[in-house]
Amino acid sequence: MLARSLVLLSFMAGHALAEGPFQALPSKAPVPKDNQMTPAKIELGKTLYFDPRLSHNGTISCNTCHNVMAGGDDSRATSVGINGQKGGRSAPTVWNSGFLPVQFWDGRAPTLEAQAKGPVTNPIEMGMKNHDVAVERLSKIPGYVEMFKKAFPKEANPLNIDNAAKAIATYERTLITPNSRFDKYMKGNKKALTAQEIRGMKLVEEVGCTACHYGPNFTGSLTEANYQKFPQNPNKEIEKKYNFTEDLGRYEITKQDEDKNVYRVQTWRNVALTAPYFHNGAVKTLDEAVRVMAKLQLDVDLKEDQVQDIVAFLNSLTGEFPKQTMPRLPGLTNTTFIED
Amino acid sequence: MLARSLVLLSFMAGHALAEGPFQALPSKAPVPKDNQMTPAKIELGKTLYFDPRLSHNGTISCNTCHNVMAGGDDSRATSVGINGQKGGRSAPTVWNSGFLPVQFWDGRAPTLEAQAKGPVTNPIEMGMKNHDVAVERLSKIPGYVEMFKKAFPKEANPLNIDNAAKAIATYERTLITPNSRFDKYMKGNKKALTAQEIRGMKLVEEVGCTACHYGPNFTGSLTEANYQKFPQNPNKEIEKKYNFTEDLGRYEITKQDEDKNVYRVQTWRNVALTAPYFHNGAVKTLDEAVRVMAKLQLDVDLKEDQVQDIVAFLNSLTGEFPKQTMPRLPGLTNTTFIED
Repeated sequence: MLARSLVLLSFMAGHALAEGPFQALPSKAPVPKDNQMTPAKIELGKTLYFDPRLSHNGTISCNTCHNVMAGGDDSRATSVGINGQKGGRSAPTVWNSGFLPVQFWDGRAPTLEAQAKGPVTNPIEMGMKNHDVAVERLSKIPGYVEMFKKAFPKEANPLNIDNAAKAIATYERTLITPNSRFDKYMKGNKKALTAQEIRGMKLVEEVGCTACHYGPNFTGSLTEANYQKFPQNPNKEIEKKYNFTEDLGRYEITKQDEDKNVYRVQTWRNVALTAPYFHNGAVKTLDEAVRVMAKLQLDVDLKEDQVQDIVAFLNSLTGEFPKQTMPRLPGLTNTTFIED
Repeated sequence: MLARSLVLLSFMAGHALAEGPFQALPSKAPVPKDNQMTPAKIELGKTLYFDPRLSHNGTISCNTCHNVMAGGDDSRATSVGINGQKGGRSAPTVWNSGFLPVQFWDGRAPTLEAQAKGPVTNPIEMGMKNHDVAVERLSKIPGYVEMFKKAFPKEANPLNIDNAAKAIATYERTLITPNSRFDKYMKGNKKALTAQEIRGMKLVEEVGCTACHYGPNFTGSLTEANYQKFPQNPNKEIEKKYNFTEDLGRYEITKQDEDKNVYRVQTWRNVALTAPYFHNGAVKTLDEAVRVMAKLQLDVDLKEDQVQDIVAFLNSLTGEFPKQTMPRLPGLTNTTFIED
């Protein structure tokens, strides 16, 4: 009964009080009941993820902007889609995205499955006219027909956009980076972090960063969306430099005033590898990102050594990237369907 | 003495008479004396090959246009470089490029090493201002500094553009597709080809295609460049459709009249996977490519069943693609150097 009350209390408080804000990364991401993971589905998903033929002119794959061989993003402020068009927001990392309760900066997709379908038909991303055209292309490739059959063996017509999205989401759920030095520390190896990193770890809690950045992925609950206004404390000087508020964030989806400049809380995992920072990628370095966040969200002016301690801690969150084999993109033989 | 004369005779005739035009693919590509292959060099080369940070805005890697996960090209007529710019010629396949005696459609690079440096600074391809900027970027990434040291252990300052090119060329020399059904047939398994494919094989010799397309890579000698005029027999109707002669080919390099519309002979290996065809990618299907080649180069009007037999034979040249592991692109931590 006491245990139950504690669980309830921690739920009400918004995060796991019993464990504090810091938790090791689970080895597996939550899996929806209607999209169980199988090796055939993972392989299909990986193949689709790397296939640029899912874009109108054959130049952009999921991996173009969410690069699995790197930090899961593209090192750019905002991504470049087909025909050199620039997007408005910075590509979030695909690594550990299986732990996010909602997808996109504005949370407009509730699942990885829903997310995966978006960029394919976004005119400035992959630019397919509609999902039917994408499915028609895949249907012409015998290798894909076979892979969809294997991944969805009980379905009569498995090659459709929902199953493509399911497969991509399944592959993405395998993209987990365990065993960061932070995780080793949390699992009992107290030598895994340096004194500076431990100072940084204490600081992010004392300063208040972990009010939002808590839990295994530092994005809050793994099941409930964690939205926050950014900036909390408008600052003319910083705004002039970085132009954060031009983008209205979640408001663009809900049209509710309270959602103006509201975003899903971003992960800290592998943050050392995902510069530049923020929704518009306006900040190039992690130390400046830490400074800006403390000021805008918590009205705290960090001292320079505090910034460095926090950056050191954040660097301890870089995990191990599991080895990946390249997919073979099944061929369309003797012809192409790519036209400009 | 007789053997020696035969060798000399076959050399003079332009190809190995003793073996005929058809030869299995060797398991290894020729390696230059000053760039021996080592696992560390291959790994560095693969990493560079997949790294889009070798392009000005971080969007284009070697693999973008020469996709190792596919037929070694990009399924497009001509490639798209940075900022959506279109190139003038179709990307040749990287698979088996180690067997080519010269590189690029016009043969302007004598080696893979020389080739690798070109696209990095081509303003419509990867668009780096110069090679120094590329080297400066790589030098900022600790992981690359380490990899260059391992790949070139005897050099005091191994991180330079020539070594980057050497590493990429070394990786490319591993990209060989053995064991096509044709190769199995050549090695004695007479059931490896169907009756139709064998008819096609005989036809390409009878019709005369193998005057140019002979040897293990169907590009002629592995050591001497094999240049040919295209078209040999100008044809107004075909020219109107495909606009082949607008590009002056090797003439653009040599400014010699005899090099107008002259190109390096292209490989037939994996040709089923590398549509569209020709230097300008103007022909979408392999059967039309066969028809056009017979007419323009040999003044032969193939019958439709002959076209189909030849296409069937060409499809038997699709080899086995060795499994590849993805490289991890070493990270620049806490910042990015990509700016638009």
